[in-house]
Amino acid sequence: MAAMIVTFTDFGLEGPYLGQVKAVLHRLAPGVPVVDLMADAPAFDPRASAYLLAALAEEFPAGTVFFAVVDPGVGGSRTPLVASIGGRLFAGPDNGLFEPAMRRAADVACWAIDWRPARLSASFHGRDLFAPVAAALAAGKTPEQAGCRAIAPPRRPDWPDDLAAVIYIDRYGNAWTGLRASILPAGAVLTVRGRRLARARTFSDVPAGEAFWYENSSGLAEVAVNGGSAAALLGIEAGQELAWCDR
Amino acid sequence: MAAMIVTFTDFGLEGPYLGQVKAVLHRLAPGVPVVDLMADAPAFDPRASAYLLAALAEEFPAGTVFFAVVDPGVGGSRTPLVASIGGRLFAGPDNGLFEPAMRRAADVACWAIDWRPARLSASFHGRDLFAPVAAALAAGKTPEQAGCRAIAPPRRPDWPDDLAAVIYIDRYGNAWTGLRASILPAGAVLTVRGRRLARARTFSDVPAGEAFWYENSSGLAEVAVNGGSAAALLGIEAGQELAWCDR
Amino acid sequence: MAAMIVTFTDFGLEGPYLGQVKAVLHRLAPGVPVVDLMADAPAFDPRASAYLLAALAEEFPAGTVFFAVVDPGVGGSRTPLVASIGGRLFAGPDNGLFEPAMRRAADVACWAIDWRPARLSASFHGRDLFAPVAAALAAGKTPEQAGCRAIAPPRRPDWPDDLAAVIYIDRYGNAWTGLRASILPAGAVLTVRGRRLARARTFSDVPAGEAFWYENSSGLAEVAVNGGSAAALLGIEAGQELAWCDR
Repeated sequence: MAAMIVTFTDFGLEGPYLGQVKAVLHRLAPGVPVVDLMADAPAFDPRASAYLLAALAEEFPAGTVFFAVVDPGVGGSRTPLVASIGGRLFAGPDNGLFEPAMRRAADVACWAIDWRPARLSASFHGRDLFAPVAAALAAGKTPEQAGCRAIAPPRRPDWPDDLAAVIYIDRYGNAWTGLRASILPAGAVLTVRGRRLARARTFSDVPAGEAFWYENSSGLAEVAVNGGSAAALLGIEAGQELAWCDR
Repeated sequence: MAAMIVTFTDFGLEGPYLGQVKAVLHRLAPGVPVVDLMADAPAFDPRASAYLLAALAEEFPAGTVFFAVVDPGVGGSRTPLVASIGGRLFAGPDNGLFEPAMRRAADVACWAIDWRPARLSASFHGRDLFAPVAAALAAGKTPEQAGCRAIAPPRRPDWPDDLAAVIYIDRYGNAWTGLRASILPAGAVLTVRGRRLARARTFSDVPAGEAFWYENSSGLAEVAVNGGSAAALLGIEAGQELAWCDR
Repeated sequence: MAAMIVTFTDFGLEGPYLGQVKAVLHRLAPGVPVVDLMADAPAFDPRASAYLLAALAEEFPAGTVFFAVVDPGVGGSRTPLVASIGGRLFAGPDNGLFEPAMRRAADVACWAIDWRPARLSASFHGRDLFAPVAAALAAGKTPEQAGCRAIAPPRRPDWPDDLAAVIYIDRYGNAWTGLRASILPAGAVLTVRGRRLARARTFSDVPAGEAFWYENSSGLAEVAVNGGSAAALLGIEAGQELAWCDR
């Protein structure tokens, strides 16, 4: 039995969608805690979501099961997938959502979900397909026992290792990028909309109102303003591209 | 012991209200998972909420306990109720919230909640009255053991079987109606604000930007736009009435 | 083992922050339910949050563990704290957040958190420091076993017993004050922005559209309008000061 199921979606917290998924998870994996990591992953944007998920998943132990669904192609032809990446298990669509995590892991395995429920709605595979499979994995079944078939991991060789763009803006207006701070030189300068930003350790090391970047608590380069909103001050939206250089 | 308690309210996710209710549920029904199905049911609108609840409750197994509170009359004279409908248990106000679910079930029984807590606030019967009763039912007590008295089910004979109106708009701008898709002819046309909408299987079957209706994942007719917001495009708000005809 | 961990934060429900904290709590205190009491405590305002927390905590039994983090000084020099107040346990920053609760309790004890995790991010002590300690307490460890050292309770003697200001505005526009209704004379009049407000028992006792104040379900004086938004009608924002007089 898994220690935890983690949800990562663009469903939003409003409406019945996340609750419907969690009801399935609790029903089919009784006793396994379900934690909502994020319900506001970049909507309809599997690529930005993928770099976010890779960074966030790092802090979870092997054996964690992720219900990871950002799936604008629902009802279309993409393959439903189970992936084992560095000991963590993921259920979700084959649209690149697991690419950066795969890129960074030593051991990767994939399965196509062949199983279909008695009732599969046209618009909500999260509830009807991915949730039962995630719950089966969390309850201790192997992917094969959960109706999956081993396949070669589908990859996106054209995607970069890190994404030089804003992938998430939090409620404080901090702009998460898809760049791991660990790949940047110590004195790297980020350039966003013509503004050059130096690195700081954290907010309190910078004068009030000043923009900077720092390694955030998930290991990503984040653009921030001490006591203010970077998004508002710099006019940044999710998707904004940026550049970096040494010094 | 019930397998699950489900909350369905108009409390919102913000503020302490839902958390206060869940604390009571966990305290009095230890070990029973609590799933928030919806906290943004149509506010102060028990009728729209009722058609939504009836549709959503269908997918839960017998024995599920619903904490269902949309209760503009709190502090007034409406009766607090327990209802057993098709094997599911509901605790909530007697304001019609359970009427459509009752209408569609073979077996219905009702109880008035006579029990009163030592401390009953004037404004928050959800926390003080309905939550302890829902928890007692989930912990395995009968309604009588939970301080309830059998009554004839209060009904709303003047309410329609299905509601030809928009009852919920989700974060994508999709407009849920109170019409079950199963009662509509296969080729039914919906008319909303003068616009005639044809049926489709799902989003990807319709050209981008086009409005249509389809059977959503909860069995209701839903007005939608492929890649857009039906609410914005058609100028729809919750409560909007609509019509349907065959062909 | 504690019966429950309660989160009280200004993290918001959006983004990964609350989920990351809950993952730690579930991992380190398996089997203990976690209830989100509030994620929209007054942001960056430990003083307003403190009066809110004191009122809300009252309804929880002894032994409850609170993860209470409103911490604009993260990364700065404030001390991380564990407090035992009236039998409840709190983990959070030493910035006054526990002062009103301490003021009202017969028995208070405090510990400084000396323990540090192997990885302490500069910006997210909630996840890295307070959550592991709260979980250890919930799992049955003493503060000393959790790496804490007894200290004299840090106090704020200059803070008032009750705060004559609006500390929270809920989604309905009701304005919670930091004044316990129990300290006000029965016929007390509240004055907000020049408007004198009389007391009522609850909404339904007041004509529609009229402003009043009443003892809310958490024991605080709350400014409200029957069928409307007090915040909008009276032009109130969080932080608004008010006065009261007898008669």
